[in-house]
Amino acid sequence: MTPAVPIALLADRIRRAGEVAAAHDTDLLLVTPGTDLRYLIGADGESHERLTCLVLPAAGHRAPPALVVPRLEAPGYAGLPLDDLGVEVVTWIDGEDPYLLVSDLAGGPTRVAVVDSMPAAHVFGLRDALPEVLQELAGPVLRDLRMRKDAAEVAELRTAGAAIDRVHARMAEFLKPGRTEQQVGADIAAAIVEEGHTSAAFVIVGSGPNGASPHHDVSDRVIADGDVVVIDIGGPLPSGYYSDCTRTYAVGNTPPESVREAYAVLQDAQERAVAAVRPGVTAEQVDAAARQPISAGGLGERFVHRTGHGIGLDVHEDPYIVGGNALALEPGMAFSVEPGVYLDGEWGARIEDIVVVTDDGCERLNGRPRDLVVL
Amino acid sequence: MTPAVPIALLADRIRRAGEVAAAHDTDLLLVTPGTDLRYLIGADGESHERLTCLVLPAAGHRAPPALVVPRLEAPGYAGLPLDDLGVEVVTWIDGEDPYLLVSDLAGGPTRVAVVDSMPAAHVFGLRDALPEVLQELAGPVLRDLRMRKDAAEVAELRTAGAAIDRVHARMAEFLKPGRTEQQVGADIAAAIVEEGHTSAAFVIVGSGPNGASPHHDVSDRVIADGDVVVIDIGGPLPSGYYSDCTRTYAVGNTPPESVREAYAVLQDAQERAVAAVRPGVTAEQVDAAARQPISAGGLGERFVHRTGHGIGLDVHEDPYIVGGNALALEPGMAFSVEPGVYLDGEWGARIEDIVVVTDDGCERLNGRPRDLVVL
Repeated sequence: MTPAVPIALLADRIRRAGEVAAAHDTDLLLVTPGTDLRYLIGADGESHERLTCLVLPAAGHRAPPALVVPRLEAPGYAGLPLDDLGVEVVTWIDGEDPYLLVSDLAGGPTRVAVVDSMPAAHVFGLRDALPEVLQELAGPVLRDLRMRKDAAEVAELRTAGAAIDRVHARMAEFLKPGRTEQQVGADIAAAIVEEGHTSAAFVIVGSGPNGASPHHDVSDRVIADGDVVVIDIGGPLPSGYYSDCTRTYAVGNTPPESVREAYAVLQDAQERAVAAVRPGVTAEQVDAAARQPISAGGLGERFVHRTGHGIGLDVHEDPYIVGGNALALEPGMAFSVEPGVYLDGEWGARIEDIVVVTDDGCERLNGRPRDLVVL
Repeated sequence: MTPAVPIALLADRIRRAGEVAAAHDTDLLLVTPGTDLRYLIGADGESHERLTCLVLPAAGHRAPPALVVPRLEAPGYAGLPLDDLGVEVVTWIDGEDPYLLVSDLAGGPTRVAVVDSMPAAHVFGLRDALPEVLQELAGPVLRDLRMRKDAAEVAELRTAGAAIDRVHARMAEFLKPGRTEQQVGADIAAAIVEEGHTSAAFVIVGSGPNGASPHHDVSDRVIADGDVVVIDIGGPLPSGYYSDCTRTYAVGNTPPESVREAYAVLQDAQERAVAAVRPGVTAEQVDAAARQPISAGGLGERFVHRTGHGIGLDVHEDPYIVGGNALALEPGMAFSVEPGVYLDGEWGARIEDIVVVTDDGCERLNGRPRDLVVL
């Protein structure tokens, strides 16, 4: 069961989406199932091959808000306050052309914005039904809304952070020499669900040399005494909001001094980047705050990815904390701060917290120790 | 870990995809992560916001086959036989434009076909990088391949059918009066994984009036003695191939005669539809074979959906068993046969088997009793 989002929040999001759409000179937002739909009406929708599409007019455009949905799937939306939101439900059955239905509802637009995740099959179906209409991406419109979290969203992210912290707190139960990464990962996945997530969306157990590959997940490698192990884990709550937290552990023995020195550089860099977060600072300045001490420590070439990504209903969303992103941070923006160092063929380390920008700094949503904990 | 697909199968699929693409007058197939990519190279790929795209030339087109992939994610493809398949791996890093990279590799196409699932963000990125090029859907090209299963695919579907049959065989453990649909569904989901699936992709427990909504999943409704309950369940094996099987149960008591009579009509219809399956018969003829006896039994208005859908790496794929689909069946095509009857506000029933077309009929991949079993 999906927890209900208060109707006042949904109404406010729909109103603001219309205003931002108008500011972007688009006439309509066309929203197929996914997190954008969940943000606006409180449900992801079904992502089957049959078209479901929210037709959301920009402020001032003549079309009425409508949700086009296969009649078979309409009962799945019965629990939503669509009537109260002024969204008409328009159903269709197999054999009808749902794209023409959208076209009939569209009020003669000249520009429409489709959500970034819309499958090509629907993009082209709408293109053929609205042949003179310019199609653009809705991402630039909706990210203006979605990256500024309201208090209810921050509360969910806080709950998610506490839930994944509880999994890291249990790491000594799972991470032991002689076990494979897969065995450790399976236990962690079960704990992620036990601690309140609906699924374990990702479980990275990067032991020894596997830790040097940032996107490694799990393998049949047997963990040995002395291994450094990157554990990057998370998943969605029933509300859809994600956790995402990385800690690096040493198994059995304190690692050699070369590892401890590099780790100390990384830990300092992560602290400095978090300390740099406040309103008005740009995303690329936070990235630089992490990168500078790592470069000064002679490890710049070992930090091969951006510093962070926004998080919310998607585990990766705006704002991206990356060089070249001059976006100024604002209160309510939530993102990861996760520098890493990767020594090919040897070991890797990463430290990741989710932070939310406050009026004068940021709130960290993860609280587990950031030292190289020896288990 | 993803089981390896034999390289000879992948090479054959890539070769045939090029030939079918040429026959469809397209120059290139552009394949982003998902089941089409898995079919062609043996891995789904990552579906993050960064572009991963297989550039696959039609037979006779000058471009070389290439896999464009973020450098961070390249290690995830190291286990695939891409070299032996003649597919060059071309990596890019944050800050580069991956769409221009595809454009450089594309060999000056005039028409490209993008997979049906490609997100709009990538569709438009490619549109901007290849501005004079007509974009079409690759679905019509790839479905010619994917809907004709080879022996290894049929073997996987057979294994999936046996696995979900074992879950239905245990239904008396789960489905009891006094439990909620959610409780029953959670136990079934665990059993789906225990019996060899990687996840429980869908669990429908439609009890009493909820059974009358074909797309109901689970609710907090407490199951009572005398309820008729639709159980429609399935998930993917480690190979990616899906199971999907529906049975309808009666809880506690034999249901009243009106229910038993309607159920008998449905069971007869499902048998007739399966018996109609053989090479040369059309998809719509199989649909009609299910629909005719239900209409003759006065329940035509209660059968509110198509008779079936193809199944393979996607749980819904071609061929669709639906009125208007004149596709002639061929050996190797695999699909569900799942008529249902739905009495609004009262109860519903559905019987679903997966079948594979053979040289002279079909093989049923599900074998559990199709009677209205009383638990």
